Amino acid sequence: MSNLGTIATDRRTLLAGGAAAALFTPGLALAASGDLPAIRKAAEAGYAASVKRIQDWIALPSIAAENLDMEKGADYMAALAKDAGFQHVEKVATEGAPGVFATLDVGAKRWMGIYFMYDVKQYDPAEWSSPPLEARIVDKPGFGKVIVGRGAVNQKGPQAAFLAGLHAIHAAGKTSPVNLVLICEGEEEIGSPHFRQIVTKPHILAALKKCEGVIIPAGWQSPSDGGVTVNLGAKGIVELELVASGAKWGRGPKTDIHSSEKARVDSPAWRLVQALTTLVTPDGNNPAIDNYFEKVRPLTPREKELIALAGKQLSEADAKKALGVEHFIDDLPWEKTLERLASQPTVNIEGLVSGYTGPGGKTVLPGRAVAKMDLRLVPNMTAEDSVAKLRAHLDKRGFADIEVNVSGGYDPTETDENSRLIKAELATYKRNKVPTTIYPRLAGSWPGAVFTSAPVSLPAGQFGLGHGSGAHAPNEYYVIESSNPKVQGLVGSTMSYVDFLYEIAAAK
Amino acid sequence: MSNLGTIATDRRTLLAGGAAAALFTPGLALAASGDLPAIRKAAEAGYAASVKRIQDWIALPSIAAENLDMEKGADYMAALAKDAGFQHVEKVATEGAPGVFATLDVGAKRWMGIYFMYDVKQYDPAEWSSPPLEARIVDKPGFGKVIVGRGAVNQKGPQAAFLAGLHAIHAAGKTSPVNLVLICEGEEEIGSPHFRQIVTKPHILAALKKCEGVIIPAGWQSPSDGGVTVNLGAKGIVELELVASGAKWGRGPKTDIHSSEKARVDSPAWRLVQALTTLVTPDGNNPAIDNYFEKVRPLTPREKELIALAGKQLSEADAKKALGVEHFIDDLPWEKTLERLASQPTVNIEGLVSGYTGPGGKTVLPGRAVAKMDLRLVPNMTAEDSVAKLRAHLDKRGFADIEVNVSGGYDPTETDENSRLIKAELATYKRNKVPTTIYPRLAGSWPGAVFTSAPVSLPAGQFGLGHGSGAHAPNEYYVIESSNPKVQGLVGSTMSYVDFLYEIAAAK
Repeated sequence: MSNLGTIATDRRTLLAGGAAAALFTPGLALAASGDLPAIRKAAEAGYAASVKRIQDWIALPSIAAENLDMEKGADYMAALAKDAGFQHVEKVATEGAPGVFATLDVGAKRWMGIYFMYDVKQYDPAEWSSPPLEARIVDKPGFGKVIVGRGAVNQKGPQAAFLAGLHAIHAAGKTSPVNLVLICEGEEEIGSPHFRQIVTKPHILAALKKCEGVIIPAGWQSPSDGGVTVNLGAKGIVELELVASGAKWGRGPKTDIHSSEKARVDSPAWRLVQALTTLVTPDGNNPAIDNYFEKVRPLTPREKELIALAGKQLSEADAKKALGVEHFIDDLPWEKTLERLASQPTVNIEGLVSGYTGPGGKTVLPGRAVAKMDLRLVPNMTAEDSVAKLRAHLDKRGFADIEVNVSGGYDPTETDENSRLIKAELATYKRNKVPTTIYPRLAGSWPGAVFTSAPVSLPAGQFGLGHGSGAHAPNEYYVIESSNPKVQGLVGSTMSYVDFLYEIAAAK
Repeated sequence: MSNLGTIATDRRTLLAGGAAAALFTPGLALAASGDLPAIRKAAEAGYAASVKRIQDWIALPSIAAENLDMEKGADYMAALAKDAGFQHVEKVATEGAPGVFATLDVGAKRWMGIYFMYDVKQYDPAEWSSPPLEARIVDKPGFGKVIVGRGAVNQKGPQAAFLAGLHAIHAAGKTSPVNLVLICEGEEEIGSPHFRQIVTKPHILAALKKCEGVIIPAGWQSPSDGGVTVNLGAKGIVELELVASGAKWGRGPKTDIHSSEKARVDSPAWRLVQALTTLVTPDGNNPAIDNYFEKVRPLTPREKELIALAGKQLSEADAKKALGVEHFIDDLPWEKTLERLASQPTVNIEGLVSGYTGPGGKTVLPGRAVAKMDLRLVPNMTAEDSVAKLRAHLDKRGFADIEVNVSGGYDPTETDENSRLIKAELATYKRNKVPTTIYPRLAGSWPGAVFTSAPVSLPAGQFGLGHGSGAHAPNEYYVIESSNPKVQGLVGSTMSYVDFLYEIAAAK
């Protein structure tokens, strides 16, 4: 979840008040089936094994950006799926890292899709309070017992909680209430560049087509009230580097030269700055790429209604505190900031790198300057079209030499509020007295468009109880034993997936 | 010589043809004194000790930017001075790293000032072919035996060659033809922020005031023809960081936050880009800071004449090749580029740093963005006034929150072509058949203004035969045994200083 991260978590963090999440209350279908007591007992009995499953998985980090242990990671993922009862488990080759496709066909009426990733973000052990691959169990005040490690919440913890549900069902001598399709990639953290190659393999596509939808397990309960946001989609994203260089430009130096030469030699760094300036309005807050808004679909009345509702539930003061900002842009009213978050495409600088970047200065005229950028996209923009517009914009202004190196991205994704998937999510949360905010569009991004757009064309979204945080950051954690009655630990999270599967099986 | 580096070397590299430097020919004064054979013999006999002196010195790197071994470096410098015969040697405390002041009073008629630095630039051993502190002796094809190490040419090699001259004079049983004032600092590589505190101490200033001028030892003979450029001054410089941050701005985040928040949160990185854009013309080639050119003195007819002469001596094609550029700005004619190099103040980006700077991308909205800049100044601009103009320019445009953090700098420096110092340099070079180009102003910078401006007010400039390169870069080297008959090795370099001192003593 390279681009979901803080947003969803932080937004929920901000939920004001709301009812407390009580003890876990199983869905009618689960309760009615009589399966509940046995499954819960099995989940509790399997707790130690479930914890160890997370820890062992964290010990094997697959990092796509470094091409580290990708085959091993896929093999491990496949073994986890087999172990959880999937009958058909298949490693799927791509032009990049392999994926995994698995099915569990119990002859149920309905099929459900599950999306996993086995890769994790890079980490610097020096920044961690405990070694990021040791997955130590630590007491975290206010949260309870947590696993600290790279991938703890993003995504191995929640994914392992889902698998623990299947183990518990099996251990209780029961059968999954729905058939399952597990679809897994190892390049989520680099923008899923080959994920479409996996889902469009004919037999995989055929399996997916049978599903009600696809969920990605999530551990995003708010520590303040246990609440969860149900996003009806997410913005798309393009990650790219803009590169100005003497080598491509044919002017300026090809390497860093002595800065005194600026008197007579062109500067790729200045060129990058000049090009960047044209991409946004002078306040830096609105895209100014030619025709960038051409395909933007305005918010619907229902989306505005949902945002207005969310605005009442969420606290502006808490949001500012969580983000560490004193003002939103233009000092907009709270609800307007929520509208922009859902509806505004962005052109963001993630990083700037040129010349000398160490402490103090160094008298060089750099031969190369790079802006790391992300573009956030709303319906009906597409990643491909947005990159083409950026390219055309630069070309038109004489910046044809500035490279646009796209490293990854996906289109915006949308899922119907009235789909069985969303209804089952809401029903499960409601029954468990989890405060829920429906938000039209996650401002972050995830490869959901691979599922929601053709040819797969399914509802897709995050689901899950439980809590963790620190995706991409040091000391990433996932709660396994919650000291907060509003937030579920590992067993509660496990049971939320079980409940959801029963709900999907029984839902109208 | 943080800012002299490539310019001077490269410019000389480009000298077309010219007479070959023959065997070392001592000045009339030196030859007439009858001291020559004995001193040369002593310099040759001391070769091994001189080489070891450079190597031992390199083994102790003092790095002002990291406050590394500054006291040790000053103590070492003081010991070197004592060892070379200076009678009074004194460590001089400043608000930063200490300097060293030493005098050698032999009762001669004239005094000469020598400027040393004991600090070196940072280095990354991983980038070096041999460990940068081991100062290994390596065969460098086309050059001969060279010492490879940090500080080899910048400045320990040439400085040690000067000291070797004093050792040789002493070993030959002779006496220095002039009295000497050695003035040394340890913060040259960070812009000499406390050097004025040293030279303005009353007894040091009084000693300097007796001198004919101040030289900084240099090893800048061109490998192509052994030629040397005599610069009649140098541009000034200000090194600074422009910093845009949420913390100072009061808008945007104080740390890096998730990039999806760009939809509603201001971006310090975009703010920096917008501010930068205003500092130069759209092509990035001319300063656009308000009133920046107010105090600029145009080139004099004599300066233009010298540049025209240099333009005929120097090869445009070779210059482009050495710099790795295909075009100069605006495709200006060669002589115009030399005029700009001498006369044009600059606003240069040394480096850009913001947010995520590693491989690939990371979806953050950075809380801080930094542009490392240098401003090059020509007479009669001053560092202080230029910074004030930059500040006023930013303030006027609403960028009062953008920090201007000056790390160092000095004013431009000028030395009269008719001073005894320059005349003695030219005479020494000429006698040794070293092709010489007189250039009005080095485009690089050095703290010469500390000497040329009040209260010291002396002629000052680089002098020396010998060759090295790679200042600030990996594999910095200094030639100790030259395989190129046009270029002097360590003994030849040593003798050039001896000859120069005799020349100063005898000059009219």
